[in-house]
Amino acid sequence: MESQRGTLLISCLDRPGIIAGVSTLLYNNGCNIIESDQDTDRDDGQFFWRIYFESMNHPIAHLRTILAAELPRVLQDLSLRWQLFDDRDRERIVIMVSKLPHCMIDLLSRHHLGELGGDVVAVISNHPDLEPLVKPFEVPFYTIPVEKDRKHQAEAKLLDTLNQLNCTLVVLARYMQILTGDFLRAWGKPIINIHHSFLPAFVGAHPYRQAYERGVKLVGATAHYVTEELDAGPIIAQATTPVTHRDTVKDIARKGKDIEVSVLAKAVRAHLLKRVLVHRNRTIVFE
Amino acid sequence: MESQRGTLLISCLDRPGIIAGVSTLLYNNGCNIIESDQDTDRDDGQFFWRIYFESMNHPIAHLRTILAAELPRVLQDLSLRWQLFDDRDRERIVIMVSKLPHCMIDLLSRHHLGELGGDVVAVISNHPDLEPLVKPFEVPFYTIPVEKDRKHQAEAKLLDTLNQLNCTLVVLARYMQILTGDFLRAWGKPIINIHHSFLPAFVGAHPYRQAYERGVKLVGATAHYVTEELDAGPIIAQATTPVTHRDTVKDIARKGKDIEVSVLAKAVRAHLLKRVLVHRNRTIVFE
Amino acid sequence: MESQRGTLLISCLDRPGIIAGVSTLLYNNGCNIIESDQDTDRDDGQFFWRIYFESMNHPIAHLRTILAAELPRVLQDLSLRWQLFDDRDRERIVIMVSKLPHCMIDLLSRHHLGELGGDVVAVISNHPDLEPLVKPFEVPFYTIPVEKDRKHQAEAKLLDTLNQLNCTLVVLARYMQILTGDFLRAWGKPIINIHHSFLPAFVGAHPYRQAYERGVKLVGATAHYVTEELDAGPIIAQATTPVTHRDTVKDIARKGKDIEVSVLAKAVRAHLLKRVLVHRNRTIVFE
Amino acid sequence: MESQRGTLLISCLDRPGIIAGVSTLLYNNGCNIIESDQDTDRDDGQFFWRIYFESMNHPIAHLRTILAAELPRVLQDLSLRWQLFDDRDRERIVIMVSKLPHCMIDLLSRHHLGELGGDVVAVISNHPDLEPLVKPFEVPFYTIPVEKDRKHQAEAKLLDTLNQLNCTLVVLARYMQILTGDFLRAWGKPIINIHHSFLPAFVGAHPYRQAYERGVKLVGATAHYVTEELDAGPIIAQATTPVTHRDTVKDIARKGKDIEVSVLAKAVRAHLLKRVLVHRNRTIVFE
Repeated sequence: MESQRGTLLISCLDRPGIIAGVSTLLYNNGCNIIESDQDTDRDDGQFFWRIYFESMNHPIAHLRTILAAELPRVLQDLSLRWQLFDDRDRERIVIMVSKLPHCMIDLLSRHHLGELGGDVVAVISNHPDLEPLVKPFEVPFYTIPVEKDRKHQAEAKLLDTLNQLNCTLVVLARYMQILTGDFLRAWGKPIINIHHSFLPAFVGAHPYRQAYERGVKLVGATAHYVTEELDAGPIIAQATTPVTHRDTVKDIARKGKDIEVSVLAKAVRAHLLKRVLVHRNRTIVFE
Repeated sequence: MESQRGTLLISCLDRPGIIAGVSTLLYNNGCNIIESDQDTDRDDGQFFWRIYFESMNHPIAHLRTILAAELPRVLQDLSLRWQLFDDRDRERIVIMVSKLPHCMIDLLSRHHLGELGGDVVAVISNHPDLEPLVKPFEVPFYTIPVEKDRKHQAEAKLLDTLNQLNCTLVVLARYMQILTGDFLRAWGKPIINIHHSFLPAFVGAHPYRQAYERGVKLVGATAHYVTEELDAGPIIAQATTPVTHRDTVKDIARKGKDIEVSVLAKAVRAHLLKRVLVHRNRTIVFE
Repeated sequence: MESQRGTLLISCLDRPGIIAGVSTLLYNNGCNIIESDQDTDRDDGQFFWRIYFESMNHPIAHLRTILAAELPRVLQDLSLRWQLFDDRDRERIVIMVSKLPHCMIDLLSRHHLGELGGDVVAVISNHPDLEPLVKPFEVPFYTIPVEKDRKHQAEAKLLDTLNQLNCTLVVLARYMQILTGDFLRAWGKPIINIHHSFLPAFVGAHPYRQAYERGVKLVGATAHYVTEELDAGPIIAQATTPVTHRDTVKDIARKGKDIEVSVLAKAVRAHLLKRVLVHRNRTIVFE
Repeated sequence: MESQRGTLLISCLDRPGIIAGVSTLLYNNGCNIIESDQDTDRDDGQFFWRIYFESMNHPIAHLRTILAAELPRVLQDLSLRWQLFDDRDRERIVIMVSKLPHCMIDLLSRHHLGELGGDVVAVISNHPDLEPLVKPFEVPFYTIPVEKDRKHQAEAKLLDTLNQLNCTLVVLARYMQILTGDFLRAWGKPIINIHHSFLPAFVGAHPYRQAYERGVKLVGATAHYVTEELDAGPIIAQATTPVTHRDTVKDIARKGKDIEVSVLAKAVRAHLLKRVLVHRNRTIVFE
């Protein structure tokens, strides 16, 4: 057979012999490790391991069966959790936006260049404004308006659309609505948001205005997983850029856009490459 | 006479003709403008101007008398405030520390190299530990212990020492005590503090631990003027540096030190060069 | 009349009284200075001044006549050069590209958001590939192929097109052809190029490969004015971004794109706002 | 026995089974892997592995004997090179300086705080000027003047001193002399230099002046291993910091100092922690 590639993520209690056990198991089943990154949480001793490998004897699907049988034996009594991803199972990304195009266009451009490591299957917005900019990228555009007092209806339609698209990752690329806890629980899959501040500073609405009023000398951008508590989910990537007393709120917004774009792209790419593991509201990002 | 140099800071309501009026006044009195920086607050129309100049006909002291007579006439009805600084009146800086030497050593080194644009006249600490490191810089070291329940006595002694030293600027270079409102009002002159976070994130104690627990991907340092509200004074300079999931609190502290040092030095230098103006809890920094 | 806004750039030998003279001239003619930035070259004493102002009594066109009569008198014997720009005379920008879209899309997006301070009047490429991406921005796209041994014909057609478009600024947004000295002299107006290295490191072709081979830990991007000597023109803006031993040439190119985009946008915007002055192959950028 | 810690560095041709083989060998000999970082050169397939581990059954010295017997068997036919470092064998660092103290003071401060992961055993200078600044750190200071036409005598004395000190790492912390190829070959151990430019830009003397003259908008610092070709050795760490048209050569030097200090410290620390491997004039830095 032609070799296939996959990513194995392991999380368990730490103990001597894990690496020897798992790497021998992989070797004995014809797998060659290409990348290996590990981390141990100093506070609770939890061990995390990402293995990117080439399987030379078995299709990844078959290897899944082997690992399901063997891993719990090799790592018994260690509260093992593991996931195996087949390189050919590309994630299906839905980008959600309101009226600001910069993050959306950037992600579509990277998709167009084949850089993302996943497929953008749709753009969904609560406004029709950005549709013309999406067209040349040949990605479908859906408008799901969110009317006052009818948010649940909009979210029901959104959930339906995401499911029909077989979406596996939602990216909020400056989507100006807060998703309800009900929606998040019903959806149950990862959502990455870009917040235009250096979290935990300036949570909530108008972070650039808040930054201006506090008189900071840097503004930030934070990509994080969405959880029920607003802007409090695990942080994947952050960056800052300098501002001065000369900058109005509008200037700050203009300067901030560049880092919103690059921080969001960095986080989405890391997620798609299975480089991000979540532990106790923090992320391990194997770069 | 040999020419003398000085800095004129002007703050007033904005109106056409200010630059023409003041620059003509200076020119007519033999002054040549070397640097000129201005800013107008977009919200309230307040105008700020820093002029660094050479006086060829009058000593700065005499020029002060001329400006005191003429400026209120040229800028009448504009709620004028102004200050004139003579280059030869060097500021007298007192550095306050506890047990961590990095910011103190950096400022002393810059002083030693003649870079600061002011004179370090003493180091004051609540602990004797750092005295040996101060010695080679030939700067006196005072220990003023702060005992529990006797903070007011310590602050009285501190105030006394600062006054005897004719200190004009206090720099808190990782001084681990909070100065009381009573002390701040009695002292009445500028105090610059370095806080080891990207304010307004992680106010108060143990910001590096707070940063670790929130799982941020960057840590920051903020130099600000001290006001009665903790860590809420006008920000002069800020910077951030990347951290990863691998970094313990101790690693974060080690990485943060480099930016604490450079941010504090940048802020102190800007203050000493009269490049910092305060307006509504924000700073204008003419760089 | 309604007030009009303009930018006055002055370059002359330094001498006391310049600011007083010019600001009084402007004030007497009903102009209010909004921004004023100056610089003096420490090596040769040349003085540079940018004044952004509001003219309340005269249209900018009329003010031009007044300044033409008065400025040489006020600044006589100082080798004066000056330029006056009317805010309503928007620059006409032509973007030139080959096959990589990122810088082009970014500039078109900023144009779309009204951020550029000038108008993109066309995109010109030596390949037809990017035309579909330009369409939604409603900017005309021209293909001018450059065939081997027929570069002069292509450049003649390019010059013709630029002139017909009344272009005032050419931006090489990853245009993979070197423009000949003959073309540059015939064109005679500013051209801004983005080079994907930290100049003067890695001049010429394949800078990312050169960076990979030297094993640098940062890669850079440089926006500069094009001159006859390759990659040697005055630098307007630069930035760097970290790379590691893990990064292949392709990874470096992917990481470098973000700073190419932001550095080029920053330089183009500064140029359009008349914030860039050139002196002895260096730029003064009033930010 | 109490557990001991060590670092194992492996370099060999890549082949499936290496990780399984070595990790099983370590596990069978009572070693627990704490950190594991690997890299494969995409161009020539060379494999690099750093393992930081705890040995629970054998002293590191004894483990060395075991590995010497077993590793060549496990990794046969792979052109294996390996090194084992005992955590208790601290490196002995000699800092070399001329007259500028900033990098030296920073390294001494980190040594004083116990951050370096090695011991500074001496400071050697060609000038006596910095001796007083070294005294409080309780590190011996040697002056070895370098007279014109008598460089070889000076280098002979230097070599002698380094050998008597049992030095294992020389750090050139702004040492203004070029060491000859004869000296480098005779010494034969690592030397880390800080060059105050973004190499390969501005090789040789006066890089800040070169930067000023080229009109760059960023200046850099590069820490690299010294080789016979000037400023061309493998780069360990680099950083840049912004400069503007306002900055004189002196300002640039002042701004550059901060990054010289942090880049050199980062490189020295990475080297001392055995995180740096050299391959084909590039470094792999496991951070």
